[in-house]
Amino acid sequence: MSKYWSDIVRQLNPYVPGEQPQDQKYIKLNTNENPYPPSPAVASAIQSYPVESLRRYPDPESSELRQALANYTGLEAEQIFVGNGSDEVLAHSFKAFFQGRDAILLADIGYSFYPVYCSLYQVSYAPVPLDSRYRIDVADYRGANGGIIIANPNAPTGIALTLAAIKDLLDHSESLVIIDEAYIDFGAESATGLIAQYPNLLVIQTFSKSRSLAGIRLGYALGQPALIEALNRVKNSFNSYPLDRLASATAIASLQDDEYFQLCRKRIIDTRNRLNKNLLDLDFEVLPSSSNFLFARHALRGGADLYAGLKKAGILVRHFKASRIENFLRISIGTDDECAALVKALNALL
Amino acid sequence: MSKYWSDIVRQLNPYVPGEQPQDQKYIKLNTNENPYPPSPAVASAIQSYPVESLRRYPDPESSELRQALANYTGLEAEQIFVGNGSDEVLAHSFKAFFQGRDAILLADIGYSFYPVYCSLYQVSYAPVPLDSRYRIDVADYRGANGGIIIANPNAPTGIALTLAAIKDLLDHSESLVIIDEAYIDFGAESATGLIAQYPNLLVIQTFSKSRSLAGIRLGYALGQPALIEALNRVKNSFNSYPLDRLASATAIASLQDDEYFQLCRKRIIDTRNRLNKNLLDLDFEVLPSSSNFLFARHALRGGADLYAGLKKAGILVRHFKASRIENFLRISIGTDDECAALVKALNALL
Repeated sequence: MSKYWSDIVRQLNPYVPGEQPQDQKYIKLNTNENPYPPSPAVASAIQSYPVESLRRYPDPESSELRQALANYTGLEAEQIFVGNGSDEVLAHSFKAFFQGRDAILLADIGYSFYPVYCSLYQVSYAPVPLDSRYRIDVADYRGANGGIIIANPNAPTGIALTLAAIKDLLDHSESLVIIDEAYIDFGAESATGLIAQYPNLLVIQTFSKSRSLAGIRLGYALGQPALIEALNRVKNSFNSYPLDRLASATAIASLQDDEYFQLCRKRIIDTRNRLNKNLLDLDFEVLPSSSNFLFARHALRGGADLYAGLKKAGILVRHFKASRIENFLRISIGTDDECAALVKALNALL
Repeated sequence: MSKYWSDIVRQLNPYVPGEQPQDQKYIKLNTNENPYPPSPAVASAIQSYPVESLRRYPDPESSELRQALANYTGLEAEQIFVGNGSDEVLAHSFKAFFQGRDAILLADIGYSFYPVYCSLYQVSYAPVPLDSRYRIDVADYRGANGGIIIANPNAPTGIALTLAAIKDLLDHSESLVIIDEAYIDFGAESATGLIAQYPNLLVIQTFSKSRSLAGIRLGYALGQPALIEALNRVKNSFNSYPLDRLASATAIASLQDDEYFQLCRKRIIDTRNRLNKNLLDLDFEVLPSSSNFLFARHALRGGADLYAGLKKAGILVRHFKASRIENFLRISIGTDDECAALVKALNALL
């Protein structure tokens, strides 16, 4: 600490991402990265990129990428905001929409960055408990609030809400509702189709998971133009050019190869279903996942214990020291070989 | 506007960057970009980048890049903070250090993003007038304040403070002092060497200008570890991975080619000196520049008028509609050919 720190910085309790070792020692099933490389179209775009153009600032509007996303989603470019990872898009969204008088509502077990944004921007929040089976019940999100944020599928549970439930949530909400769809491509239904109908709906997605581009930092928000305008006002008061030229070119190339995208998605879902069965066979309880990870606890062995045993065996999974979920492991879906190695290591540990 | 906007967003008056047309129609001397491409080492790093690794998140600490910067600057890695452009680094710095009770001090004519950060984070500020020759007098920055930010060289004037003046400023300051050295490589003296001595000094630099990498978005802050820790706390409450993998690799490659860097720097300084003389010959008053731009006003013709005439002639320069400087043009140093074209166009206009 130093006397030059602002009061807010003293009070912050920053987010801690999953371990990101820079060596190749581990089978990494801890940060929900995609086990498959990005599309070959991405490699071509990077290798043929006109490097001399890097001397120029990027287009502050990221028009070309936003148009590519518009074409892909069926929305208009002015309904799309892009940022340096969905974390940045989330941060700007908290600033843009969540500084009212009432507390915002979020699940007590959810993406643990949300309370951190609240602390950064001094937004008050009220955690809404998941039910006994770790599910979100949208009926719990009624009543006065300063906004609602829900991850769908939820993290780290992996459980998805139906589109009907999201619609019900929106029908009973007068405040802004953010649906964070970081994991949407692994089996849940996107709320994108509801945007035209609900001026208070903001959907956030990312290239990190399903598009194998965590290393490029690209996320985006979808909503009616008045919401996007608020995000642009925050962006243009923070960093006018959040996306670098290479990141935009990479993202555009990824969108152009839908066949590869669909193939990877399907492979991950298939592997997840097999791993789910393997874990049940090993006496794990596994929450029903619509994401690229499984959230599971063993009938007898504690989560911290299994996490440490797996790490010793060269396999990283994520363990959260949080009440109600301390016995769970969050296991990212790897390749079939990586998942087989996990099952083998668990067999040896149990 | 929408009822979902937070109060702060309603009040924002976002920064407006210089025009960034996406076509190749203009000679672009308006955003202080480098006229030369990045080092050939950058091109090699991008073309040989292992694209499959983009499926992984970047190192949240950017350790390799910070070490490369440590080697380059002679500082330690824990004295270095990296971000997505120096604009992001500046934004985090305002949040980390400038939310005290007293107003911060900044030049009345300076980088116009500073007051925008103040509005984003509700920091009060007191503009300190430049003297009659558009210079900063550090004696004007004494007395109680919540922090000081000075661009050295200043923008858009291009005028540098001596290191002795910066030292004098620090000797009389009890609050945090940020020296924004975006243009430092074009002839001014960096304050980096004072960091060991002053726990309240934060120096901010960028790869955008002198390293021809505006398109990659990379800036950094240098200071004692307690200051860097505050920036990390903000970063980790906003976006844990601000730098993508390709941007880091690009920056590291640029640092490795010092010969090219020195060559480009020198060419720009030489061109600036020639253009300065040409403008004097055309009856311009030119402020003494230590940057990669000139700030100049004509004896007879107004700034808005000349800006418009040049644009019509296919040359973009920057004009600010602000009091005391409305008759100036800010002209980025281009190649010799681009500057010759400017002189020719001015000759035709005047």
